[in-house]
Amino acid sequence: MKFYDCKTAPSPRRVRIFIAEKGIEVPAVQVDLAGGEQLGAAFKKINQDCTVPVLELDDGTHLTEVFAICHYLEEKFPEPALLGGSATERALVVMWNTKIESNGLAALAETFRNRAKGMQGRALTGPDDYEQIPELVDRGRRRFELFMGKLDRQLQGTEYIVGDIFTLADISALVACDFAAWSRISIDDAKADLRRWYQLVSARPSAQA
Amino acid sequence: MKFYDCKTAPSPRRVRIFIAEKGIEVPAVQVDLAGGEQLGAAFKKINQDCTVPVLELDDGTHLTEVFAICHYLEEKFPEPALLGGSATERALVVMWNTKIESNGLAALAETFRNRAKGMQGRALTGPDDYEQIPELVDRGRRRFELFMGKLDRQLQGTEYIVGDIFTLADISALVACDFAAWSRISIDDAKADLRRWYQLVSARPSAQA
Repeated sequence: MKFYDCKTAPSPRRVRIFIAEKGIEVPAVQVDLAGGEQLGAAFKKINQDCTVPVLELDDGTHLTEVFAICHYLEEKFPEPALLGGSATERALVVMWNTKIESNGLAALAETFRNRAKGMQGRALTGPDDYEQIPELVDRGRRRFELFMGKLDRQLQGTEYIVGDIFTLADISALVACDFAAWSRISIDDAKADLRRWYQLVSARPSAQA
Repeated sequence: MKFYDCKTAPSPRRVRIFIAEKGIEVPAVQVDLAGGEQLGAAFKKINQDCTVPVLELDDGTHLTEVFAICHYLEEKFPEPALLGGSATERALVVMWNTKIESNGLAALAETFRNRAKGMQGRALTGPDDYEQIPELVDRGRRRFELFMGKLDRQLQGTEYIVGDIFTLADISALVACDFAAWSRISIDDAKADLRRWYQLVSARPSAQA
């Protein structure tokens, strides 16, 4: 296997943490997103959507999308389980991971990519150019702030997002909270359970990945 | 189990087709989205995100998000497999389903919800109100048209989206193509492989679900 990564970007970090939690070694190649390497002809042969992470399998298959990569790694390296331990738990991990992607990470990307000067004309990832839409900056921020409230309520009485086991849902939410700092969004004091959880998951060695 | 459905909406249709392909019976309850039932106190106890589909399990767990529900049903009713037959195939189904959600269905929702008069103040699903952003109408259309080109290229030389087996990726893409008609977006003649595939999957009895 080979892992196409970018040390500074949130999406591949989710896979880096997943790999660190599994305790496996996957050779990584850094893709220079700031320099536009993902838009060049060479990288388009690996992923025509011009995004990282990508996991190249030994048969040459290129897997893109964080959850697809993690789903594959979970099957190949089942221990420790990071997608849940029963059918219901696995479905709840999928459910929470989906919510964190669509209401958390996507909202933050909206705020970041529609404001940053370096993202002019690049408001969406991928090979096609899209102009920035300034209204999305505040909308994304509001969505993420409301979503943090939802996470805080979910964490009342449970150690992790899906009950008492650390899963991909926690990885995705941790990366979202750290990505939020790029837009100067932080967890306010009123969200005591979210703050407690953030300290807990940030202290794991894998969070350094 | 109990299935919270809405016969007119695209997201629960994906689960209806999945259930029909499995050949199982799940008692369904219709939620009146047009009448705003999803925003009422009774439904918020079932899903605080105010969306359908929801699958209620016998232990009272409420699963939301299409892929979480399908993941659960696949584990409980493995035949016929609709999420792939090997670790690589399953990862490719997850990958394509994710792309169809984020670049296909989400783009169409952007076009539809930011234009329809009935969606004023309701540009995003969920309990919180968001104003329409007119620029998103055209952006969503462009994104979906480019995405159809991508699907057409993927289908060159394969019967279904992931090789030669019908999967959730086909269900999601079929529902997206039919949802596109709401915004008068259709598959143009140049996309011969996408048209061939659309005829094939639309002819399955489950497409009536």
